[in-house]
Amino acid sequence: MRDSDNGDSQRPGSQSSLKSANQHRVVRALQTSGELTQAEIARRTGLAPATVSNMVKELTAAGMVAVPGGDHPGQRGRAVRLTRRMGLAVGIDFGHRHLTVAVADMAHEVLAEERVELGTGHRAEDGVVQAGALLDAALDRLGCDRKSVLAVGMGLPAPLETDTGEVGGPSILPGWVGVDAAAIASEYLGTAVHVDNDANLGVLAEHMWGAGRGTTDLAYIKLSDGVGAGLVLDGRLYRGRGGTAGEIGHLTLDEFGQVCRCGNRGCLETLVASHVVIGLLAPSRGPDLSIADIVAMAEGGDAACIRVLADTGRHVGVAAASLCNLVNPERLVIGGELALAGELLLGPMREVVGRYAVPSAVRSLDIRVAELGPRAQVLGAVALGLRSALPA
Amino acid sequence: MRDSDNGDSQRPGSQSSLKSANQHRVVRALQTSGELTQAEIARRTGLAPATVSNMVKELTAAGMVAVPGGDHPGQRGRAVRLTRRMGLAVGIDFGHRHLTVAVADMAHEVLAEERVELGTGHRAEDGVVQAGALLDAALDRLGCDRKSVLAVGMGLPAPLETDTGEVGGPSILPGWVGVDAAAIASEYLGTAVHVDNDANLGVLAEHMWGAGRGTTDLAYIKLSDGVGAGLVLDGRLYRGRGGTAGEIGHLTLDEFGQVCRCGNRGCLETLVASHVVIGLLAPSRGPDLSIADIVAMAEGGDAACIRVLADTGRHVGVAAASLCNLVNPERLVIGGELALAGELLLGPMREVVGRYAVPSAVRSLDIRVAELGPRAQVLGAVALGLRSALPA
Repeated sequence: MRDSDNGDSQRPGSQSSLKSANQHRVVRALQTSGELTQAEIARRTGLAPATVSNMVKELTAAGMVAVPGGDHPGQRGRAVRLTRRMGLAVGIDFGHRHLTVAVADMAHEVLAEERVELGTGHRAEDGVVQAGALLDAALDRLGCDRKSVLAVGMGLPAPLETDTGEVGGPSILPGWVGVDAAAIASEYLGTAVHVDNDANLGVLAEHMWGAGRGTTDLAYIKLSDGVGAGLVLDGRLYRGRGGTAGEIGHLTLDEFGQVCRCGNRGCLETLVASHVVIGLLAPSRGPDLSIADIVAMAEGGDAACIRVLADTGRHVGVAAASLCNLVNPERLVIGGELALAGELLLGPMREVVGRYAVPSAVRSLDIRVAELGPRAQVLGAVALGLRSALPA
Repeated sequence: MRDSDNGDSQRPGSQSSLKSANQHRVVRALQTSGELTQAEIARRTGLAPATVSNMVKELTAAGMVAVPGGDHPGQRGRAVRLTRRMGLAVGIDFGHRHLTVAVADMAHEVLAEERVELGTGHRAEDGVVQAGALLDAALDRLGCDRKSVLAVGMGLPAPLETDTGEVGGPSILPGWVGVDAAAIASEYLGTAVHVDNDANLGVLAEHMWGAGRGTTDLAYIKLSDGVGAGLVLDGRLYRGRGGTAGEIGHLTLDEFGQVCRCGNRGCLETLVASHVVIGLLAPSRGPDLSIADIVAMAEGGDAACIRVLADTGRHVGVAAASLCNLVNPERLVIGGELALAGELLLGPMREVVGRYAVPSAVRSLDIRVAELGPRAQVLGAVALGLRSALPA
């Protein structure tokens, strides 16, 4: 069972507590956007302003909607939002060596965030139990319990087999290989749990809270030891038929290049993965370098570090140009640890994107650094939860 | 004025004639699919089978729905469809030297198709007047008039500036350059006219009637003198932020290759455009070759023709692998005149896609030849009309 909905009818904010189709539309619009004025609600739902006004009054009286900082809830220019009474969404992020749980309300406000260290050797079941304990601690602090949780998003640093839902191997989380992570987490937590990969969570987080806010067609490229892209197209996460859309790390840049972990040769990832970048500088700049060290040295004027970061940006630019030609996003957000390099990487990348892409696809393209840093994962998991909690 | 809706309220099948929200949903489901059983309608609309059954009875009594070949309209297993009374959609295709107009009903049945020769030097206004005359002739033959037309799709063999809606230049239709084609056609025909490019029309046509039927994530690659792709993602035409998604013809395959008309070098189009393929064989196989000649010679065993078609397929395969890595469609449909080569082109293409793409993105990928041939354009224009006639 991937999605469990037992007990849903007793929950606050559940669909059954929404009286009419119009109420449904208003709640859905607010939940999608986090906060809207009554005029915006009318525009997005197609309802008459007077209908929206009545609906907001009803929902406010029922404690389901609030006007932040306002004592004139009838004023149409004021932004309104759903209250905590409408339920909560949870994000769970299993990182390489840590576990983070965050809780948000339907107005997209993150209310609590808890983090513990975690060994990579743990069994999946134990990880889920720890996540449950962390979640309960967070809910306790908020004066809520699990009945308030509408949906849970979860991130795992491992490939997910889309056919079976199982965690693939070889993985840096050996205790999870062959496990249907969504199923065991849904069963243990008693709520629907949705699992997705780091690039998809990154694009959801940056789209909702970060550098991708306000966009309709957004690509997020994560540059770390793994390289991947997440796509929001027409305002929705796009996964592709088998769930593998956004595999920008495996575009072939050099047919006779290094053999890649995917089995191919000369993939973007073989040229720009963090350990590859570090490996280029280790012989001359010493062992045990981190990306942060390299960026700091480059900012201090080290020519080799500047050159390697620029070359990295240029390689990413070649692949990003293909992405722009094929998908034509309005914005590219660069995340992952290499995003620390900022303009040292983005400058050369922009130049190459302009060189390789068809002009009309990049004329108004905006390339910028991600804003959420290492929080992108857990916030993306929250965003996944928020999206899956949307009334149908 | 891009979309004109004057007179819409008097039209058959217009939104105002749909009584309830549920009726709306049933009509929308039928119009999207062309033909559905009552069980399928219930599944797609989320309405109870009994509600659907009543709705179908009502709509049948009103002459808006029919059960083809059936005299037991109450039977739930029988497919039902919208009647001609619900209105018509029109496709207008301005080809290089011809003008085609086709008319379909809301059940996706093409009822009439008219074609005339057309000089490339005509003025846009004259072209629109000719299209109107052809349309009236087709409607006459069907016993209908322009009041039945809900929406019109139009194809032009020219670049469209997405900011302004104007036809870009240099174009093979000089009389259209700088004209807002949708606006003048909407004004003259008195109905909303939607314009799109050949690759987008191709994917819409193949998705509705051809080799892409039943797919949710489809890519159509048109291989002719121009090379482009159209994308249907999550069941909807995807255009990208500026309308230039699918520019597969301008992926860089050779950084130091031929200069392309887009201003870049070594684009896929510089390697596989029809005239390039012909140019490779002209010195040894004679001038005035057509793609059809080359395919015929290859089928007769000519080694050079076989080799050139295979190389063409291999080049397309490199670009298609990038498309699959980034977009992960379930099917690739190859259209345009080079599709005549069939397996001579697709075999080598499949091999290269498998070599360059990440395995999970192409494991269940299906690559096949388009089914609609030169009719793809006008049928795509009809499909564009059908989609834009959908009740909101």
